[in-house]
Amino acid sequence: MAKANVREKLVTAGLELFHTKGYNACGVLDITNAARVPKGSFYNHFKSKEMLALAVLDRYQSLLGLDALQDKSEPPIPRLRSLFERYITLHVKWQFARGCLLGNLGAELSSQSPLVRKALKKHFDRWCGAVAIVLQEAKERGDIAKSHDPQETARFLYNAWQGAVINSKVTRSQAPFKNFFAVIFDSVIKG
Amino acid sequence: MAKANVREKLVTAGLELFHTKGYNACGVLDITNAARVPKGSFYNHFKSKEMLALAVLDRYQSLLGLDALQDKSEPPIPRLRSLFERYITLHVKWQFARGCLLGNLGAELSSQSPLVRKALKKHFDRWCGAVAIVLQEAKERGDIAKSHDPQETARFLYNAWQGAVINSKVTRSQAPFKNFFAVIFDSVIKG
Repeated sequence: MAKANVREKLVTAGLELFHTKGYNACGVLDITNAARVPKGSFYNHFKSKEMLALAVLDRYQSLLGLDALQDKSEPPIPRLRSLFERYITLHVKWQFARGCLLGNLGAELSSQSPLVRKALKKHFDRWCGAVAIVLQEAKERGDIAKSHDPQETARFLYNAWQGAVINSKVTRSQAPFKNFFAVIFDSVIKG
Repeated sequence: MAKANVREKLVTAGLELFHTKGYNACGVLDITNAARVPKGSFYNHFKSKEMLALAVLDRYQSLLGLDALQDKSEPPIPRLRSLFERYITLHVKWQFARGCLLGNLGAELSSQSPLVRKALKKHFDRWCGAVAIVLQEAKERGDIAKSHDPQETARFLYNAWQGAVINSKVTRSQAPFKNFFAVIFDSVIKG
């Protein structure tokens, strides 16, 4: 029980630090200090910082709101808008300083860690799968053009969004999100 | 003369290391070792690693092909395609492992370094300015819809591209670029 608690604290501190500072800018000692646990306890739970990153990514998953995306009480396209609006609320709360952990680690670690890269690919596929279901639903209702390949459009949305998020970190503003909404919902997806 | 040479070597090594490993994953000693110059010489040329990053970004600028973009011997939209094709050639050469330095540092350093963030904003504005001129030209020729705001579309292209590049690092494939071309040139920009 006590052990599980330490593990939880490490994942919480790891998420906070990787998200605010990046992976390579903090060491195991920074993480155990932030978690207020002894440094030695780290290795009882994780073989390496890299293994912690995988657990952090799984925790981060819950911020992505993919469950709400399958709630059919709202029509598909407004539901998709709500998903991105949910993300914007988080970035505003974070004052545009954190970005998306998936994009950050993708940029920082893809070459350094094959394990993290594989995990990022899994999260990307999961996100695109969930969004593609909604786009398929929109297509069947005639809300978007029949020419859409839901998987392809979902992947485009993911990438365009990740780029907008990085730009919101650089410009410290919501402008890239407004730009994303205008182009995506007025041109790429009309609904 | 000898001094300028050392500075050049540091910028070359810095670009190589920041681009392949990231900023926080390498230290000044890694850079001076890669440049084959004495460690102490670093501080004759740069006050800090952060200052080197600014010089590296200026050097990186030449890879972006913005001059060729203003060569009017090709019509505007094909010229824009050529720009992205030029980038794809680089990413293929790099085996999708490096990504774009602007996106990488935007993700990694926006919170850590206000100086780098400001420089990234400058490079982003410069890129969007150059692309907006081409889109304006396309608009005046009637190649794209009058409804386009060239600045807004240029910013969207920048962000969507940055996201595609990160995804190409994660998936180690050209698929995100094909996806980008299909959506951008068949839907966002029709020309």
